[in-house]
Amino acid sequence: MSGATSTANERVVERIRTADPVLVGVERAIDTLPGMTTETVLTSGPPLEFDEYDSGQAGAIVGGALYEGLADSRAEAIEKLKAGDIAVRTCHEHGCVGSIAGITTASMPVFVVEDAASGEVGRCHFYEGGSRHRLNYGSYNEAVHEQLTFIDEVMAPVIGATLDHVGGIELRPIVQEALTMGDDMHSRNHAATPLLAQELIPAMLNLERSGTLTPTQVDQTLEHLRNCHYVFLRPAMAASKATADSAHGIDGSSIVSAMTFNCQEFAIRVSGLGDRWFRAPMAPIEGKYFDGFSEDDLEYMGGDSVINATMGLGGLAQAAAFSLIEYQGGSPDQIVERNEAMYRITHGEHPYYEIPYFQFRGVPVGIDVRRVVDEGVTPVMNMGIPGSQGGQIGAGCLEAPMACFEAAVDALDG
Amino acid sequence: MSGATSTANERVVERIRTADPVLVGVERAIDTLPGMTTETVLTSGPPLEFDEYDSGQAGAIVGGALYEGLADSRAEAIEKLKAGDIAVRTCHEHGCVGSIAGITTASMPVFVVEDAASGEVGRCHFYEGGSRHRLNYGSYNEAVHEQLTFIDEVMAPVIGATLDHVGGIELRPIVQEALTMGDDMHSRNHAATPLLAQELIPAMLNLERSGTLTPTQVDQTLEHLRNCHYVFLRPAMAASKATADSAHGIDGSSIVSAMTFNCQEFAIRVSGLGDRWFRAPMAPIEGKYFDGFSEDDLEYMGGDSVINATMGLGGLAQAAAFSLIEYQGGSPDQIVERNEAMYRITHGEHPYYEIPYFQFRGVPVGIDVRRVVDEGVTPVMNMGIPGSQGGQIGAGCLEAPMACFEAAVDALDG
Repeated sequence: MSGATSTANERVVERIRTADPVLVGVERAIDTLPGMTTETVLTSGPPLEFDEYDSGQAGAIVGGALYEGLADSRAEAIEKLKAGDIAVRTCHEHGCVGSIAGITTASMPVFVVEDAASGEVGRCHFYEGGSRHRLNYGSYNEAVHEQLTFIDEVMAPVIGATLDHVGGIELRPIVQEALTMGDDMHSRNHAATPLLAQELIPAMLNLERSGTLTPTQVDQTLEHLRNCHYVFLRPAMAASKATADSAHGIDGSSIVSAMTFNCQEFAIRVSGLGDRWFRAPMAPIEGKYFDGFSEDDLEYMGGDSVINATMGLGGLAQAAAFSLIEYQGGSPDQIVERNEAMYRITHGEHPYYEIPYFQFRGVPVGIDVRRVVDEGVTPVMNMGIPGSQGGQIGAGCLEAPMACFEAAVDALDG
Repeated sequence: MSGATSTANERVVERIRTADPVLVGVERAIDTLPGMTTETVLTSGPPLEFDEYDSGQAGAIVGGALYEGLADSRAEAIEKLKAGDIAVRTCHEHGCVGSIAGITTASMPVFVVEDAASGEVGRCHFYEGGSRHRLNYGSYNEAVHEQLTFIDEVMAPVIGATLDHVGGIELRPIVQEALTMGDDMHSRNHAATPLLAQELIPAMLNLERSGTLTPTQVDQTLEHLRNCHYVFLRPAMAASKATADSAHGIDGSSIVSAMTFNCQEFAIRVSGLGDRWFRAPMAPIEGKYFDGFSEDDLEYMGGDSVINATMGLGGLAQAAAFSLIEYQGGSPDQIVERNEAMYRITHGEHPYYEIPYFQFRGVPVGIDVRRVVDEGVTPVMNMGIPGSQGGQIGAGCLEAPMACFEAAVDALDG
């Protein structure tokens, strides 16, 4: 590795290590996403033409158009999407990230997270709720619509007003503590979600007392926060997006600044290689399936949530979360082995995010494409598994395909 | 082991496995503790004469007498205690358990936990607060008095009213979930305390809305719950006491039904051996000390909290809580090794309380004095360390002394 690359990588990792993400508010996508339009449906992964999206991810995009009122029927939505009257773009192109299919439309509320160190902003839509069927898992029907409406009419305004009242909530201490409580901040947010709730509740109560919020709004919000462990994943993703963007664009760096996938391909971006996506077919996922489902039912629908792994959480912090084995299979030994391997492909360690089982060693940060290729080890990611009939059907541990990293190394050398 | 012992032990372990502890209320000690009087100070450990208590535990007893208004000065309190005008009795003799010195006086509020399976009731006083100086660590001054008054005037009535409103809170699901979130339910209750708060908050808000509680009461209670991770230890101890008492008194059983210690000795009770305490000098503690303190400053002041270890939590569940190493020292390997050894001295495994790192194996329950002696392994317990000048000065892992178990085996054989 040249001295210039080493210095560049050091700068990138320093940005990750010093990032100070603050959840500053909730806004409608149209009001906060750069370049967003009312006729755009955002989805996860590297960009594709609409025709290239198939099955679940295509269904989710159509569902998003219907939810937004851009068409009255699936047929009309598809026609408009094909004609380009409704644009399909990626979340990453508009300063946000999305879970699984990642559907984000103009009116949808998003968490807004600002990295106080760099000023970069990341956004992410809300977790829909506990049902297996969600828009982001390719489902769109009456029940899914109702869940989205609840988020829009209750969760978003209540949390938005509360954040306005407190002036933002620092996420770093929450992530730091949650890692000592069995969370990986991807497939387990069991601790981080109540820790976030603890920060919100006193202000929420004051807003009820002053008449700004109703008792029903408060009760429903608390119930959702209590029932949906996954709530915190979304601010965590927005934080990772802000951090990743602050670490992007450092000339000469071989550090990965984004990982994502759509229904066709996995892709990475590299800090020193501009906005180009290095793509490759999906590598296998090792998962555990809900009763009645098997790997034959698996259908990729995309996923930007692996931005958390890109920033050292999720799969790169899985030894903080042995309880994961109940949800996504595997064994503690496998978790330890996989997590330890991540230190061989990363440039540094996080000063705040630590893994108790590793004697409070910092999580590995700064995935270096050269080390990945040299070591023959690719990043691992925890994720929910979508099914071919829509809906979540399990959870598992995904490996990034080596070809992305090889292509990036070629580009660096080329 | 005889067939009769085996059957008896099976019955004991079945009581532990089926226990269903419910936090049913908060009451003043005088109103709920069997045999309690207004002139009694309860303390932890097996019984001693007042003259036999020294240093911190004696100071705590005197502090309890002063707090209760049984004397106007330390000198007067000591005189009355020596004369027997103020009685010193143990918590275990009055259906409760206490942390460290375990001071419980007539007016103090206690958590009341009923085992719905057996009907047994256990009680435990409240956690005083975050200061290093607490009555139960041998300190009694203006600040300690204020903390106790806050518990008496705010925490107890608010939580009591809330429990009355909801009709009790099941503790088993909280303990079960907290074990998947890095708690051992002794030195770590970081998850269990917010999980309990989640159960309390909706009802608390309703009581505020109906005018039963004031906003200030609610705010102060939430703040205490948020700042004091140790809150849940106390209902957990009351649950263990109820469970342990349900498992006590089974003829022929060689299973331990209580462990405790005072400033002089460690002691155990055995289910089939009546109310006799088998005592021995304290074994060493391996600890980590707060800045400015060392093991030279350690001073035992008693502790009933090891009732949790007796029921399979704390030291017997420490592999659920690798974060403990930050607080009490040691290493993950040591934690795993110690916890695995506990399976060799116990009769069964808990069906609900599971350790993720052990592939969700149930915590070991039913410490068998014969196995302890045969294996040469004694139970391990996590605990806070008191200092000779009063106050907490660290935390560590304590081993029970073998002599207690040898004496119990002799009694079984005798």
